[in-house]
Amino acid sequence: MPLLEFDIIKKYFSDITTKENSANIHLGIGDDAAIVSIPENKRLVVCTDTLNEAVHFPLKTSAYDIAYKALTVNLSDLAAMGAMPKWFTLNLSLPDVTESWLADFSKGLKSLSDKYQLDLIGGDTTCGPLSISITLAGYVDEEQDLLRSGAKVGDKVYLSGCTGEAAYGLACLSAGEALDEHQQYFVSRLNQPAARVDLGLSLLGIANACIDISDGLVADIAHIAEASQCGVKLDLNAIPLPAIADKEQARHYALSGGDDYELAFTVAASSQTVLEKLISQTDLKITCIGDVVATQGVQLLDKGKPVELSYTGYEHFSNQ
Amino acid sequence: MPLLEFDIIKKYFSDITTKENSANIHLGIGDDAAIVSIPENKRLVVCTDTLNEAVHFPLKTSAYDIAYKALTVNLSDLAAMGAMPKWFTLNLSLPDVTESWLADFSKGLKSLSDKYQLDLIGGDTTCGPLSISITLAGYVDEEQDLLRSGAKVGDKVYLSGCTGEAAYGLACLSAGEALDEHQQYFVSRLNQPAARVDLGLSLLGIANACIDISDGLVADIAHIAEASQCGVKLDLNAIPLPAIADKEQARHYALSGGDDYELAFTVAASSQTVLEKLISQTDLKITCIGDVVATQGVQLLDKGKPVELSYTGYEHFSNQ
Repeated sequence: MPLLEFDIIKKYFSDITTKENSANIHLGIGDDAAIVSIPENKRLVVCTDTLNEAVHFPLKTSAYDIAYKALTVNLSDLAAMGAMPKWFTLNLSLPDVTESWLADFSKGLKSLSDKYQLDLIGGDTTCGPLSISITLAGYVDEEQDLLRSGAKVGDKVYLSGCTGEAAYGLACLSAGEALDEHQQYFVSRLNQPAARVDLGLSLLGIANACIDISDGLVADIAHIAEASQCGVKLDLNAIPLPAIADKEQARHYALSGGDDYELAFTVAASSQTVLEKLISQTDLKITCIGDVVATQGVQLLDKGKPVELSYTGYEHFSNQ
Repeated sequence: MPLLEFDIIKKYFSDITTKENSANIHLGIGDDAAIVSIPENKRLVVCTDTLNEAVHFPLKTSAYDIAYKALTVNLSDLAAMGAMPKWFTLNLSLPDVTESWLADFSKGLKSLSDKYQLDLIGGDTTCGPLSISITLAGYVDEEQDLLRSGAKVGDKVYLSGCTGEAAYGLACLSAGEALDEHQQYFVSRLNQPAARVDLGLSLLGIANACIDISDGLVADIAHIAEASQCGVKLDLNAIPLPAIADKEQARHYALSGGDDYELAFTVAASSQTVLEKLISQTDLKITCIGDVVATQGVQLLDKGKPVELSYTGYEHFSNQ
């Protein structure tokens, strides 16, 4: 006897709840819709992302990692907005029902929902090619926000962590050979990326603009530039590189690799002191990689000289 | 040159906005997330549904109808909660980019978002097998709600419209023959179902429990019974039937056919007068089809005698 939709929800998704949010979640899973409220003086920040098999994760990715990544990509969007994540809905399309797969998927969701105190308030479990859409909501204070569009000429541009590691992890997996410990680190960056939620929250009032790096460093920095109607000069030699032997390949991954979910943000000169204090208090590497300038677009400089920008980001429909 | 994701969003999805909601939508499409607030004394009602090609709609369904249905199934969930729909997010997975398809899809969304004054506040457009997930949010007053779990012994059970029409429409399409005008009506019920949003809103304070009929009349009534810890006796001869020649087939469709998005609700004796006034003011057919009883489960009666219940609803994973 196969599990029916209601059984799946009850068995695998009904315990992803917290006590912390209960005052604002009046009705969770089980009716036609959920009912929530927002605390006074807060606004709701809402994002949504889809992961499709063989597009956003390789075919053999574990259910745990798929769930982990599906929630992380959304947590990363809220991190880039300086928002505190609170609850989410899940659309899960499955070609068939395997209890071990569902148990593993549920564990992946729960590891992150426990970490961030998230409630799963609703969803839809359907038959179809493997696909996961999560819609995640969180809070920001009424008078505080962190947008792509706030960069000002004169701001310094910062990056958390190191981009390109997930892309190199994917290359290691695609090679199809046994992975050594060094390679396993990069694969873990692909399969279980970290959303910079705490960093995003601490940037409120410090950064002028912020974005998460999902499509590639240069491509996403270009979104800040465009939204802020300004330009960015990136210092090629300041950009952190994945620790691999081939420096040219490392640079390519760092500039154009997607899926790292680091944050890029801009900070005015007047906020440098408070940023430096923040940097000294976090274990996360924060690197100054460039400047916001008046001339539109993104320019890459090697010891002050412009470098041709052949590195573009990931685009879903660019292979047609 | 194919359209890239950002172009698609700009060209086809950026104008699904209203002036009405602008006070509560602080940031829409274009950043990592949207920012909204909820008016004082309101709560947010949130639902989400996925439509997959060849599972939730036939292969040849037009993009207009797919969009129309994807929004309707969510509007219907909010209708069943007595909520006023306000904004939604869209996850659209496409195998390829066809501008005419996108234009048609966008028109389908816009026809309903204009009708109900909805804002599209965000989404994700990705490459993958055709799949649409919509997450829709609306408002209810703080002290008012309409749940599955509110049915009381002694309530009368009511149904809007007629169930089984969409299922017969699907059968007409599946036959693969040219459709006459009569059959076209049923196909339109499948492809462009009506969400009973106004009815749902007007049932607040009148109905004790409500559900939308998406999986089949008996299956969904059973959800009310289970959530309310009571039972329902349905009068076989009171249930409206699709206008087709074969009465046995019509009955089968009416009891078990999915995709009609009518509302079933229960009303206490003390609210009958106000319900009758409501019925007299609407063009929608509202039929009393049974009673809420203490004995759990759903029982079907033919002139007072129990009939074996061989009609079950649609279940996504039941064919394994």
